[in-house]
Amino acid sequence: MNGASPKLSPELRELLDSNKLGTLATIGKDGLPRLSVVYYARRGERIFISTLRERLKAKDVERNGWASLSVRGEQPPYPSATFAGAAVVRTAGIGEETALVMGRIGGLDEPPEAQSDQALAEVGRVLIEITIARVSAQSHL
Amino acid sequence: MNGASPKLSPELRELLDSNKLGTLATIGKDGLPRLSVVYYARRGERIFISTLRERLKAKDVERNGWASLSVRGEQPPYPSATFAGAAVVRTAGIGEETALVMGRIGGLDEPPEAQSDQALAEVGRVLIEITIARVSAQSHL
Repeated sequence: MNGASPKLSPELRELLDSNKLGTLATIGKDGLPRLSVVYYARRGERIFISTLRERLKAKDVERNGWASLSVRGEQPPYPSATFAGAAVVRTAGIGEETALVMGRIGGLDEPPEAQSDQALAEVGRVLIEITIARVSAQSHL
Repeated sequence: MNGASPKLSPELRELLDSNKLGTLATIGKDGLPRLSVVYYARRGERIFISTLRERLKAKDVERNGWASLSVRGEQPPYPSATFAGAAVVRTAGIGEETALVMGRIGGLDEPPEAQSDQALAEVGRVLIEITIARVSAQSHL
């Protein structure tokens, strides 16, 4: 839960930090998994995804409080793992984490300046936060 | 359901055929999505994944009869889509489809010679087959 990431091995941290796209799974209204490709950022054992409040993935997280993210490397042998845990949709104090994700989307060395919660709310932007509780399906790590 | 793939647009067929890795979602015993990275092959509107019979993903499919696969392209803007539908674990007449998947894993121009069901059973190999019923989360296609 802190920067030291006691649960994440160096290999898992490297996998998360050297990639920026993953496949997010939430639980749909019908109880079936819903998958979508997302950009993400990591801090400690938390994973952040910036999305719009009306997106089904955000509604799923609000309903179920759970999400998982599968990440794989881009080069053979394609290391991969799935990170799962409690998830929330945040709208307060999200400027810095949102900028972190945006910086990765844009391939920037430094994240852009953080926007205010109000500015983000005006464009409907929310933050999905997963606290990693379980790592599974580790492959080629 | 046939080679003409009436439900799959040319863009979706191209996405599936020009990639070979995807993220498979099955439904775990606990009802939560289970994700893993898999190689796959497509024929018509069916997606094939070769796995081992003791793998949890195979047990999930046997229990629930459902699976979905998220596929994304490797280059920006990373086109992606999720393909979901009824799924079964097959052990009979799977030589050809298994060879199709193996050929893609190995990056071969032609699939290797098909093995007999008996030979595949001896090494515990089964085939997960998804019949695409729904395509969602289409992005950059």
